[in-house]
Amino acid sequence: MTTQQLIQQIQQKKSFLCVGLDVDLEKIPQHLLTKEDPIFEFNKAIIDATHDLCIAYKPNIAFFEAYGIKGWVALEKTIQYINEKYPEIFTIADAKRGDIGNTSYMYAKAFFQDLQFDSVTVAPYMGKDSVEPFLSFDGKHTIMLALTSNEGAFDFQTLSVNGKELYKQVIETSKTWKNSQNLMYVVGATKAEYFKEIRKIIPNNFLLVPGVGAQGGSLQEVCKYGMNDKVGLLVNSSRGIIYASTNEDFYLKARQEALKLQKEMEDILNSNAAL
Amino acid sequence: MTTQQLIQQIQQKKSFLCVGLDVDLEKIPQHLLTKEDPIFEFNKAIIDATHDLCIAYKPNIAFFEAYGIKGWVALEKTIQYINEKYPEIFTIADAKRGDIGNTSYMYAKAFFQDLQFDSVTVAPYMGKDSVEPFLSFDGKHTIMLALTSNEGAFDFQTLSVNGKELYKQVIETSKTWKNSQNLMYVVGATKAEYFKEIRKIIPNNFLLVPGVGAQGGSLQEVCKYGMNDKVGLLVNSSRGIIYASTNEDFYLKARQEALKLQKEMEDILNSNAAL
Repeated sequence: MTTQQLIQQIQQKKSFLCVGLDVDLEKIPQHLLTKEDPIFEFNKAIIDATHDLCIAYKPNIAFFEAYGIKGWVALEKTIQYINEKYPEIFTIADAKRGDIGNTSYMYAKAFFQDLQFDSVTVAPYMGKDSVEPFLSFDGKHTIMLALTSNEGAFDFQTLSVNGKELYKQVIETSKTWKNSQNLMYVVGATKAEYFKEIRKIIPNNFLLVPGVGAQGGSLQEVCKYGMNDKVGLLVNSSRGIIYASTNEDFYLKARQEALKLQKEMEDILNSNAAL
Repeated sequence: MTTQQLIQQIQQKKSFLCVGLDVDLEKIPQHLLTKEDPIFEFNKAIIDATHDLCIAYKPNIAFFEAYGIKGWVALEKTIQYINEKYPEIFTIADAKRGDIGNTSYMYAKAFFQDLQFDSVTVAPYMGKDSVEPFLSFDGKHTIMLALTSNEGAFDFQTLSVNGKELYKQVIETSKTWKNSQNLMYVVGATKAEYFKEIRKIIPNNFLLVPGVGAQGGSLQEVCKYGMNDKVGLLVNSSRGIIYASTNEDFYLKARQEALKLQKEMEDILNSNAAL
């Protein structure tokens, strides 16, 4: 999917909501556990109930791997379902991968070619040759960790290197990599005040923003500092939407929560004269 | 597996060799491709031919994921085969994972509980709460990236923070984390001169050392600067061993290459008076 197609979808749906699929069998409605593939059934219901309100789905790969082969089958069915039924939706494999070149290439192959995701999240610690194999895939997007939403973000990401915080150095260096136009960045909503500085370095790239909802980030603050004239934001909510209810009507409650966020986003988009 | 059991195995086998299983269907002997599960058949032959010469196997998870469900099935069969037939061998899931706490816990569950690996490699960028979920598993080991063997290691890992290189800061900070006694570290063989400094910070922890062989690192140099009085090293070779030949006798050629390294290691162990 091209960035232009993503932007069009945002304009049409008046939404820049990404729904995170972190499916934990201990948290999903118990009546689904009797189905042959509870993880896929859960995802399918959530997707059918929210697809017109969001522009991206983000399966969290850990939650599939934790169930072994069953989990991997559910992941394949989930991405196939989205790609066939809702091909306009942007898909993110939230995998946080990164290794030496030939290994990163195998991860890229797994998520871009075999599973046909539009994008994958990667970690920057191993540098250029660990990320460039992902960037080499045409029409695919690589979403690199910059400043994450968790407490541990302050352990290393905000340490000062060359007179600036490490996450800024990571972003600046990555701009010099081959095919860096295919980069997006993870920036946590819990650190909204940082968006202003980040936008000075990368005014145009899309940012994937976790941390709204369960982790306490403010959508208004994120948009105030992080939005650009093409919106430039994919704001994720996982637990706040998918676990809104554990009853049989869980998908309706999930829709209600997604709708609340979409309406808030629509208001922001309508009131932003620059868009 | 306890660290003590790992040390005993090193002493018995006179080896601290780890064999990396990076199975690429384009590189394995072509006659295996007619088998039902070529990846597992390849691994099984390599394992049977080298188990007395090495003390650890390190499946590279990317190379399994790249083949989807088939790959995951081969991974499960490979780890089960090692655990059942050669339970003394230390197993490493080379996965380079790391995410927010609840997600890291799911990865830890996948590799420690479901697949029954002894250890997993993790990335440090997201800090304490991204690694501690792995450290909480009793009898399991978490191998964190410190200074990697690739060119991109110099992009961020060697930048100066607080007057020292980032990788040193990462190691020092990690010592304060809960259950940090379960930590090992990845340090590339291509940077042998750095081991001296690293041993000042962590004299006792085991180091997993990639980069000997195909990547050009020297075993002698690594041992000179990195060995401690309990050996403290797991030296990995992947391509140099498993792709020594693509003929039907590939496993014999793999054994020859493993034997060369084991003999070199035995000489080093015999000549080291401190052991």
